[in-house]
Amino acid sequence: MTDDLLSRRARVLDGTSSAGAEIERSLQHAASAAVAPAFLKIDAVGARAAARAVDAAISSGAPLLPLAGLAVSIKDLFDIAGQVTTAGSTVLTDAEPAAQDAPAVSRLRAAGAALIGRTHMTEFAFSGVGLNPHYPAPANVPMATLDRDTPRIPGGSSSGAAVSVASGAAWAALGSDTGGSVRIPAALQGLVGFKNTASLTPTEGAIPLSTTLDTVSALTRSVRDAVLLHELLSARRVALPGRPLRATRLAVPTTLMLDALEPAVAAAFERAVDRLSRAGAQIVTLDVPPLADLAPLQVNGGFASCESWAWHRHRLATHEADYDRRVVTRIRRGMAMSAADYIDLQKARAAWIARMHAALRGFDAALSPTVPILAPPIAALEASDEEFFRVNSLLLRNPSVVNLLDGCAISLPCQAPGDAPVGLMLWSRGHADDALLDMALAVEAALANGAFS
Amino acid sequence: MTDDLLSRRARVLDGTSSAGAEIERSLQHAASAAVAPAFLKIDAVGARAAARAVDAAISSGAPLLPLAGLAVSIKDLFDIAGQVTTAGSTVLTDAEPAAQDAPAVSRLRAAGAALIGRTHMTEFAFSGVGLNPHYPAPANVPMATLDRDTPRIPGGSSSGAAVSVASGAAWAALGSDTGGSVRIPAALQGLVGFKNTASLTPTEGAIPLSTTLDTVSALTRSVRDAVLLHELLSARRVALPGRPLRATRLAVPTTLMLDALEPAVAAAFERAVDRLSRAGAQIVTLDVPPLADLAPLQVNGGFASCESWAWHRHRLATHEADYDRRVVTRIRRGMAMSAADYIDLQKARAAWIARMHAALRGFDAALSPTVPILAPPIAALEASDEEFFRVNSLLLRNPSVVNLLDGCAISLPCQAPGDAPVGLMLWSRGHADDALLDMALAVEAALANGAFS
Repeated sequence: MTDDLLSRRARVLDGTSSAGAEIERSLQHAASAAVAPAFLKIDAVGARAAARAVDAAISSGAPLLPLAGLAVSIKDLFDIAGQVTTAGSTVLTDAEPAAQDAPAVSRLRAAGAALIGRTHMTEFAFSGVGLNPHYPAPANVPMATLDRDTPRIPGGSSSGAAVSVASGAAWAALGSDTGGSVRIPAALQGLVGFKNTASLTPTEGAIPLSTTLDTVSALTRSVRDAVLLHELLSARRVALPGRPLRATRLAVPTTLMLDALEPAVAAAFERAVDRLSRAGAQIVTLDVPPLADLAPLQVNGGFASCESWAWHRHRLATHEADYDRRVVTRIRRGMAMSAADYIDLQKARAAWIARMHAALRGFDAALSPTVPILAPPIAALEASDEEFFRVNSLLLRNPSVVNLLDGCAISLPCQAPGDAPVGLMLWSRGHADDALLDMALAVEAALANGAFS
Repeated sequence: MTDDLLSRRARVLDGTSSAGAEIERSLQHAASAAVAPAFLKIDAVGARAAARAVDAAISSGAPLLPLAGLAVSIKDLFDIAGQVTTAGSTVLTDAEPAAQDAPAVSRLRAAGAALIGRTHMTEFAFSGVGLNPHYPAPANVPMATLDRDTPRIPGGSSSGAAVSVASGAAWAALGSDTGGSVRIPAALQGLVGFKNTASLTPTEGAIPLSTTLDTVSALTRSVRDAVLLHELLSARRVALPGRPLRATRLAVPTTLMLDALEPAVAAAFERAVDRLSRAGAQIVTLDVPPLADLAPLQVNGGFASCESWAWHRHRLATHEADYDRRVVTRIRRGMAMSAADYIDLQKARAAWIARMHAALRGFDAALSPTVPILAPPIAALEASDEEFFRVNSLLLRNPSVVNLLDGCAISLPCQAPGDAPVGLMLWSRGHADDALLDMALAVEAALANGAFS
């Protein structure tokens, strides 16, 4: 059994551990030199108080809350009452503290989360690399165990979120995914990253990147934890009928999403497809032509650029020098777009979604590598804009398809034991979330136990 | 009892009339010199065939369809299979005929409507006046009985729609309402005009004016007919608990909506408020401050200008000379808007809606004059752009508030018998449609029987 949130909760429930003991362990991980950069702020006092309250409730015979006083980290994008939300920027460090929790945060808090701290992120959630010029990058956790001397990118934009969970400083991390910002760091660090249909979870109280594409969701260590976190964040129950893989029909789109795979990614992906096939899933490799027609949806940076330009333009007029210049480059692409262009973009998206639905009709979901590469060294991307933007495009390429689709997706680790992390992305149309999570439980089991291999 | 669609249906049902006889009567009205300009096309063959089919079904013992083979007119905005949709323009007269009915049309057809013809409208549904340089204006029907020598405006943009119902050429008219285009002609011609919450009825197969504000709905002769037509168009049942007026709390906003009332409108409105008050409704006159803050939502023509610019810009580049120049003036205002302006406009609207909901909390609905003036003579508006735009602004002022609110509203005749038509607008927030229609039935009864006067 994976060492995940629900396994820790079971130990708190049966008395072999306590919320208080668990939070001390998490705080210790968070304070270690390798993990510390994952947090812009650690709230030891608040986290301990939440854990103590859970232990006291257990003593008094109250039912154990779903998150059991265990450590959950919050991306710096979200409002936490009394704290300043900076979204990884320095231009907002003097802003007023939030008057109240973002709904996503308050739902986690009400479910018994110990909010351990605010996590490192790329400035204003731009880019999938995980670098931010204002703060040292937290290094990729599993890659460090393979090669201690060459720090690798954490993936982003939920960079600290992934490091917090991979390191044991948190059992789940609240993140956001506009073009892959939950799934990319999950894939690069061997975690589970779920991106639900955007409208299912509240975006209020989070600084927007793209109001059209932003999705609030969590990074976890297992699919069952992803189900739990999604149920809490969406305030609804997920139906899990336990449909077997042999009743499942999966597409492997060859268009775009298999381009330029690093050999290790190609090998892990093939291994995963092979295992699922041997577990009885019907897998069909096919061309999906609309995936070759994304350019009109990306003109002038697409939704993210014009929607972020709308949010930032007044602040940029006076504080541009304080921004990450790579972020400014992307925001400023939105200047060129007219209202009519934007309205046409919305129409083009709706038409493209209809074409995608038609192309994937008859499939329960699609399978793709989450990202085509392993986590590269940080140094090379800090040194070169060209290399940074090349890698960034590669990282965003596959995950962002699902945001444009208004769909849902989950990234699961699929590498062989001991290998560098590779993410397998299972994805589907909007509002197929429950079926996708149900399928992901079966996929996770098939990849882990290799029953048929 | 009003001579409305449901009363005619009852006569078809009890055999005192037939669908065939009714359609001949409607076709005769449609062909009269005064009414003919209300139609861009009359489909006598199709209408007769639909009526005959209903009579044949009655003979064979089948249940009578809701619309009983009675005449319903369709605004030229909507696709009817095999016909060219021109939206009152000449630039589209060479377009391909529609391959299928718009969903709103197919719902009416399936309910037994005899589609009598396509009605006159202002070009591309712009303006509330009802004039179109390509086609002679159909004159206001009830105003002609008061003063035959001075043709008055029909109101628009659903100009022919209103004339078709006021004249008896149709028992209901399919229209669209983006800033009052159903309610304004209803008010000026003594009809009932309902504008439901926009998302409840399908806009597909209709040429858009503003994708944000467009609402598909009908003009009728009574509130009960409005309920029937809304149930058919929205494909749902309306709950009508029959709540009495004495349990109803109504706001009369003084801000903006009572400005510049013509004396006859002020008198009719006061008379209506007085009657409703004497019928037991609790009526509170109050300032509604957000109604004074509409300017930011109207910058550069607001939603209608930029959304129509997006739709028309390519055709305008080559065919501008073929457009109504007054329409081009309004569309071109949308050129100036950037994507960021548009995104900010959407945000400003959401914030304004929240302020409006707060200001009207505790009220079941609000009461306002639908428009502040009686229908003016056509000649003066044809002669002067200045007068045209002045009157147009007055006509759109009150109804458009409800479109911006994403709300629902109904205009009912409230003038004393024999007087020029004046509309009373009952309006409320989005998705309060059923309660509003229930209230409108009670208001209609109180105004008609004057039980307490």
